[in-house]
Amino acid sequence: MSEPIGHRRWAIAEGYIPRDDRATTRELASHEALCVLNAGEHVAHVSVTLFFTDAEPAGPYRFDVPARRTLHLRMNDFDPGRLPAGREYSSVIEASVPVVVQHTRLDSRLPGLALLSTMAFGMD
Amino acid sequence: MSEPIGHRRWAIAEGYIPRDDRATTRELASHEALCVLNAGEHVAHVSVTLFFTDAEPAGPYRFDVPARRTLHLRMNDFDPGRLPAGREYSSVIEASVPVVVQHTRLDSRLPGLALLSTMAFGMD
Amino acid sequence: MSEPIGHRRWAIAEGYIPRDDRATTRELASHEALCVLNAGEHVAHVSVTLFFTDAEPAGPYRFDVPARRTLHLRMNDFDPGRLPAGREYSSVIEASVPVVVQHTRLDSRLPGLALLSTMAFGMD
Amino acid sequence: MSEPIGHRRWAIAEGYIPRDDRATTRELASHEALCVLNAGEHVAHVSVTLFFTDAEPAGPYRFDVPARRTLHLRMNDFDPGRLPAGREYSSVIEASVPVVVQHTRLDSRLPGLALLSTMAFGMD
Repeated sequence: MSEPIGHRRWAIAEGYIPRDDRATTRELASHEALCVLNAGEHVAHVSVTLFFTDAEPAGPYRFDVPARRTLHLRMNDFDPGRLPAGREYSSVIEASVPVVVQHTRLDSRLPGLALLSTMAFGMD
Repeated sequence: MSEPIGHRRWAIAEGYIPRDDRATTRELASHEALCVLNAGEHVAHVSVTLFFTDAEPAGPYRFDVPARRTLHLRMNDFDPGRLPAGREYSSVIEASVPVVVQHTRLDSRLPGLALLSTMAFGMD
Repeated sequence: MSEPIGHRRWAIAEGYIPRDDRATTRELASHEALCVLNAGEHVAHVSVTLFFTDAEPAGPYRFDVPARRTLHLRMNDFDPGRLPAGREYSSVIEASVPVVVQHTRLDSRLPGLALLSTMAFGMD
Repeated sequence: MSEPIGHRRWAIAEGYIPRDDRATTRELASHEALCVLNAGEHVAHVSVTLFFTDAEPAGPYRFDVPARRTLHLRMNDFDPGRLPAGREYSSVIEASVPVVVQHTRLDSRLPGLALLSTMAFGMD
């Protein structure tokens, strides 16, 4: 097979975890997800740095994505002290091998659901 | 005409087919769609591999997109044994000629609809 | 100023105009929009080709975007004979000068609204 | 560290601030957001130009994003005289150093919420 698909650096400019949640299940609770696909043959050592409007960046937060696996992380669980609901942020994701990164929000502040998603911006 | 538009490899990091569906018609049932455009003059032999958090990849699943045609596939129908609703996944799409790939979710778990969509990440 | 931002070819793999509309105003009626920005100093001669699952492509449909102008087109109005609500399609957009293309759907089939949007895939 | 992630020029073809707002809080009022991440070590001097269908562009509007900071701007507050709710527009963002730009709309015209988001199109 050829070079694994992806980049070693990705950025997401948008970031906001809604508060005032109406959901009664974890599945439907407002959250933002960071999806990281490692389609290659080697483990990806990943670090995430969070950027804010009015403070120095937080992190890097480190985790691994095994070879041929995907990981869907909830930003709500990342570091609730530094990243509470209602705080505007951005993310930079760096990996030791090429990965693919996508960002999604599920918003249940009002009755019904709203969703947004975009590929992150990748660049080696 | 010039080289057909697109890439031969694409990846989608997000993937989740919602369960607990309220819809009473197929059109409005929660689903994820994989849209593949082949704007060129030759048939595209396409293979899709699914990646999971906790298991080896599934596939490749193979299908053709004829020249000058588009195909909108429902991931719900792909392989319900390996890809049931509620399982987190990612996708890699490989084609024998350049194609363009987009990913969309329609979510009707709660009253009303939610939609998300993004171009996949393409790279030869 | 430098080269105008954009590409001369773009593709959108997703396309579907919802039917069964509940909206009572044009603004809130289900529709798909094609947004074309011409940030440069010369008129953009634009042509759109529509691709289907089961028929030869339709078009090209031709229009101009003046220098330093944007045009937000409703696909509903494009060619209702070939592109009715409920038909799956894809689009290729070609322009005589660099432009930027984005695709958006507003869906009001059920009470409330749903939205999706993505940059198109650009490539010269 | 390597070159900061991003581009010096970005474009967003879609733009529309919904009117007829039902929200009773600023957080849930219909708006469009421009998110600009400056992950580098130098302040970003940013200028935004707005493009319309039927008038010359407005701006540039200038602001700074400090080093290692993100800024989430509401387009509603940008220039309400030239950019009122209900006017179709596009945006070009230019920065003195590489930044990453994402565009998001929250729509509360009808009961419930709708969201859309996409990375802007970047190009130096």
